[in-house]
Amino acid sequence: EIAEALFPLAARPLTGVRVLLTAGPTREPLDPVRFLGNRSSGRMGFALAEALETLGARVTLIAGPTALPAPRVAERIDVETALEMHSAVMARAADCDLFVATAAVADYRPVEPAENKIKKNADALTLHLVRNPDILAEVAARPSPPFTVGFAAETDRVEEYARDKLTRKGLNMIAANHVGGERGGFERAENALTVIWRNGQRELPMMDKTRLARELAALIAERYQEHHAASS
Amino acid sequence: EIAEALFPLAARPLTGVRVLLTAGPTREPLDPVRFLGNRSSGRMGFALAEALETLGARVTLIAGPTALPAPRVAERIDVETALEMHSAVMARAADCDLFVATAAVADYRPVEPAENKIKKNADALTLHLVRNPDILAEVAARPSPPFTVGFAAETDRVEEYARDKLTRKGLNMIAANHVGGERGGFERAENALTVIWRNGQRELPMMDKTRLARELAALIAERYQEHHAASS
Repeated sequence: EIAEALFPLAARPLTGVRVLLTAGPTREPLDPVRFLGNRSSGRMGFALAEALETLGARVTLIAGPTALPAPRVAERIDVETALEMHSAVMARAADCDLFVATAAVADYRPVEPAENKIKKNADALTLHLVRNPDILAEVAARPSPPFTVGFAAETDRVEEYARDKLTRKGLNMIAANHVGGERGGFERAENALTVIWRNGQRELPMMDKTRLARELAALIAERYQEHHAASS
Repeated sequence: EIAEALFPLAARPLTGVRVLLTAGPTREPLDPVRFLGNRSSGRMGFALAEALETLGARVTLIAGPTALPAPRVAERIDVETALEMHSAVMARAADCDLFVATAAVADYRPVEPAENKIKKNADALTLHLVRNPDILAEVAARPSPPFTVGFAAETDRVEEYARDKLTRKGLNMIAANHVGGERGGFERAENALTVIWRNGQRELPMMDKTRLARELAALIAERYQEHHAASS
């Protein structure tokens, strides 16, 4: 209520907008002890969830395992695996206006996790993995999809892969960043993004993730409003 | 120096003893983004490192990636993979009196991590893993080994597997705990241990990890002194 008193409506362009946002990594258990994970800290997603709330949105955050303090959002659901994240998103996809997929969802999971700890008794081991569902593509392919924003974390050919992902999955926007090496992204406090939509593009240069999240939230709000003006 | 003033020498039975202690998980990269990990928080190892320092020891901590605050120890070396932990330990094994291996070292690593992010383009994926070196067994098998304490995290048949590990690897002591399910251990604040040596055994019941670490440190000091009295 304080935020509503302080900001005029124009500064809260997402008032009344229901946002579903995924963040963090997922973990795919191999057995009760070992898992397949990834380096997403969840920091960018948590900051973006807060920034969208500040713009007036009601954010439901679906979070993988992170070590971050709880963000100020309307609702939070904790999950561990890609299948759990998939269920949590699909149960809510019909009731959201804007879907933002920042989570680094594991593409593959072990065919069948072992119930007891795998004993090591061989010099080599082969793990058989199967593909996880593509949450982002599935939401974007719904009959009346929400405005859908994806993320692309790439180690090379960032813009090319991101534009391909935008088209192939039928997204409204995609925010692409370069991960690995010295260029920000996973496990770092700073990041830079190339934000791409069908007929436009904007560069958000290297900056603190909190500030970057605010700039990205403002850009999402701008494109979301444009989209609704065009389709009404 | 304050500790030395406050505690009589009898309360600091490890004065002058050089301890090498490993803690936390290791991560085995599949590519710049994905890794094989495990659920060790490092909490038990960090608490034990501090408890051993309090008993007078000079602790060198070799730590995998954790989200814990820095413990009060003489020296700390951060590593990520099992091979890095192996190198860090082997470089120092000749200069320690007591080796405590609390780390949950990955048994296997990918044959060759991919330099760029693996693109997902198949319904199934096979990962080929190879065995990592056994740091604990290698230290215990040195010509003049330090007093060597291992840990065993098991999901079933805890005592049987632990006693087998003690004998097979030639350890002086092993602390075994049950992981997975509701019984403490990984990712929990409490834990219980069954501590086993060649001709003895002690149960440390479920308690806070800090207190448990103090009791285990005292027991290690007792067995260490006994061992040196017997061999001199």
